[in-house]
Amino acid sequence: MTRVISITTDFGSGDFGVGEMLGVIYSIAGDDIRIADLTHDVPRHNVLDAAVILERHTPYFPSGSVHIAVIDPGVGTGRRPIAAQLGDQTFVGPDNGLLTLMLARCRRLGEGVQVVHTSNPAYWLPQVSAIFHGRDIFAAVAAHIARGVPLEALGEPVDEPVLLDIPQPLAVDGGWQGTITRVDHFGNLESNIDGSLTTGIPNPQVLVGGVVINGLVQTFGDAQPGDLVAMIDSSGVLGVSVVNGSAAQRLNAGQGTPITLRQAE
Amino acid sequence: MTRVISITTDFGSGDFGVGEMLGVIYSIAGDDIRIADLTHDVPRHNVLDAAVILERHTPYFPSGSVHIAVIDPGVGTGRRPIAAQLGDQTFVGPDNGLLTLMLARCRRLGEGVQVVHTSNPAYWLPQVSAIFHGRDIFAAVAAHIARGVPLEALGEPVDEPVLLDIPQPLAVDGGWQGTITRVDHFGNLESNIDGSLTTGIPNPQVLVGGVVINGLVQTFGDAQPGDLVAMIDSSGVLGVSVVNGSAAQRLNAGQGTPITLRQAE
Amino acid sequence: MTRVISITTDFGSGDFGVGEMLGVIYSIAGDDIRIADLTHDVPRHNVLDAAVILERHTPYFPSGSVHIAVIDPGVGTGRRPIAAQLGDQTFVGPDNGLLTLMLARCRRLGEGVQVVHTSNPAYWLPQVSAIFHGRDIFAAVAAHIARGVPLEALGEPVDEPVLLDIPQPLAVDGGWQGTITRVDHFGNLESNIDGSLTTGIPNPQVLVGGVVINGLVQTFGDAQPGDLVAMIDSSGVLGVSVVNGSAAQRLNAGQGTPITLRQAE
Repeated sequence: MTRVISITTDFGSGDFGVGEMLGVIYSIAGDDIRIADLTHDVPRHNVLDAAVILERHTPYFPSGSVHIAVIDPGVGTGRRPIAAQLGDQTFVGPDNGLLTLMLARCRRLGEGVQVVHTSNPAYWLPQVSAIFHGRDIFAAVAAHIARGVPLEALGEPVDEPVLLDIPQPLAVDGGWQGTITRVDHFGNLESNIDGSLTTGIPNPQVLVGGVVINGLVQTFGDAQPGDLVAMIDSSGVLGVSVVNGSAAQRLNAGQGTPITLRQAE
Repeated sequence: MTRVISITTDFGSGDFGVGEMLGVIYSIAGDDIRIADLTHDVPRHNVLDAAVILERHTPYFPSGSVHIAVIDPGVGTGRRPIAAQLGDQTFVGPDNGLLTLMLARCRRLGEGVQVVHTSNPAYWLPQVSAIFHGRDIFAAVAAHIARGVPLEALGEPVDEPVLLDIPQPLAVDGGWQGTITRVDHFGNLESNIDGSLTTGIPNPQVLVGGVVINGLVQTFGDAQPGDLVAMIDSSGVLGVSVVNGSAAQRLNAGQGTPITLRQAE
Repeated sequence: MTRVISITTDFGSGDFGVGEMLGVIYSIAGDDIRIADLTHDVPRHNVLDAAVILERHTPYFPSGSVHIAVIDPGVGTGRRPIAAQLGDQTFVGPDNGLLTLMLARCRRLGEGVQVVHTSNPAYWLPQVSAIFHGRDIFAAVAAHIARGVPLEALGEPVDEPVLLDIPQPLAVDGGWQGTITRVDHFGNLESNIDGSLTTGIPNPQVLVGGVVINGLVQTFGDAQPGDLVAMIDSSGVLGVSVVNGSAAQRLNAGQGTPITLRQAE
């Protein structure tokens, strides 16, 4: 059976080691592998950004896919390398909170969760650099998993993987108070307010960066270039955009900026 | 049989949804697929640029390839999603003129043309976002086509797909008056004047951006770094470049800039 | 058997012809091929940078892989297209020094070396542009090699491929005098001083760009953001970095900058 291995990094460019990871994966996993780059444009060391990307992208992948995430400021220090079976997909990376949102999703959906510390060097490259575990541990371990090595063989169970402290949206008078979790390449803002929360608010308005946006649009084509709009974005969460422009720049907003969804007065 | 699916977008970076499209394609089309990124660097919403890229790249692909193009400013509005069988290859994307040059090429070569409105939701993802048909419609439809679903099953025929109004070069005194159709990453200018038109002009000169370039070079190595040169580019059309530099910047020229090829006086 | 073809270029972006190369490879080599992008971010025309990348990445690939490198300022001039069997892997590209370090490595390891001038047009595309041999010669030749065409069939032997004049580190009083060979995307400096040379120096210091760095760190996590550090990098050579920053910028250093490793006084 062909299995897909996806790669997410903050390398920003192929020159920093993606090619070496590809070589390792093909060397170990051989013929029945497809490799998919999710993105290499995670802002450097931004674990939350990558956590949002994993939650957004990986549910679209086939059962049995293996996802490597290398946003790893603690490489070579004490942080553990881990692998996690979350529902029907497997994740490999440093134990630094990258899986926070996928773990929450699994628990919400009642799917199985198994996490191990990939401490068994039999599944690493023979030589492990102190600064590039993406190649020497994560790529190698992921390729072995894709070949069928069970998680139990990779190392001891991890009961409490590191979790990011991601705020939940708070119910406020007539709406919800949330946070921007991610800014994409175009400057679109993605929040932690699920799109379903907008349905209970007949006449919604959004406050973010000192600005009030009245109403939600369905799509960019409903507004004019340069307009600041709020919408349920393609991840199904409340987002804020400038049509053909950057909401992050316009509002001087970013990860952590508060955002309020409420009924217009 | 293995089939290749290519992807062309204006996403500029993997963080905007390419990964989700990969997941959808692998989920539906499974084992016998290869995915090739043509480019994600089409200037945002520049349908003509993508039309030139499709015409330039896709003839090099194997028979039976499927090409997805997502330059889609009208997503979520009334514009139709379409699929087109053009010669031995298939194209999937919004009906906004992306296929203008491939359709012209097919008709020029006498190859078959079949276009359908991919309106049958049985071949979409179950949930369709108003702002990301690349994932929810185009990737899914392309994967079904690669699995063998015939175009007839995808929706009703389209007799008149949207066409861009791309000017044809005009015969002028001793030569041709054309237009720059595309600027690449390095600032090289690509025109709509076919290279074959230069053969009838014994002593050619090129006028563009207020500058006269005498003669054509064969290759960059025939000139010095910093030289402004005209040549038949690797697409077989008249192009203008600065060796190791940007002709677009030097001449303040871009898509739509007039260019004249004529006999030197 | 599935074979991997890797691609390294200075195209900087997919819009400049990578897609056409993919099409050519899939058209010729068909089903049993995997294509891996090493990087397209080699600085334009920087043959040494690419030589370092090839040496760094390709040993991680499976036996039988074919590596295409298109850093080709001399395309269309007299420079030869070549293919080289170096150990268990094959390389295809212009004869301009790209293979200098892989050839040295092969000779160091006692592995076999065979180089041919790929002059036989039977393995090129039918039409060869004067400015894009990446597509018309190198991609086509690599795909034929991956299908099993022996190097002998591609053209006559090359006894003396072009070599870059890469300085070797010199033994100096209490240490080594070397050179920066490459700057990566993050501004990390990579030198030609092998990491093994540091072991003979009990109390090492590094001099580069007018600055003295005392001691080596094992990994980025051993220092603070903004610190200038020296370490054995993931390629196994002496490197200099700014934690979360750019050493190239901080030190105004780049390819060719001298670097000294010596015992602290």
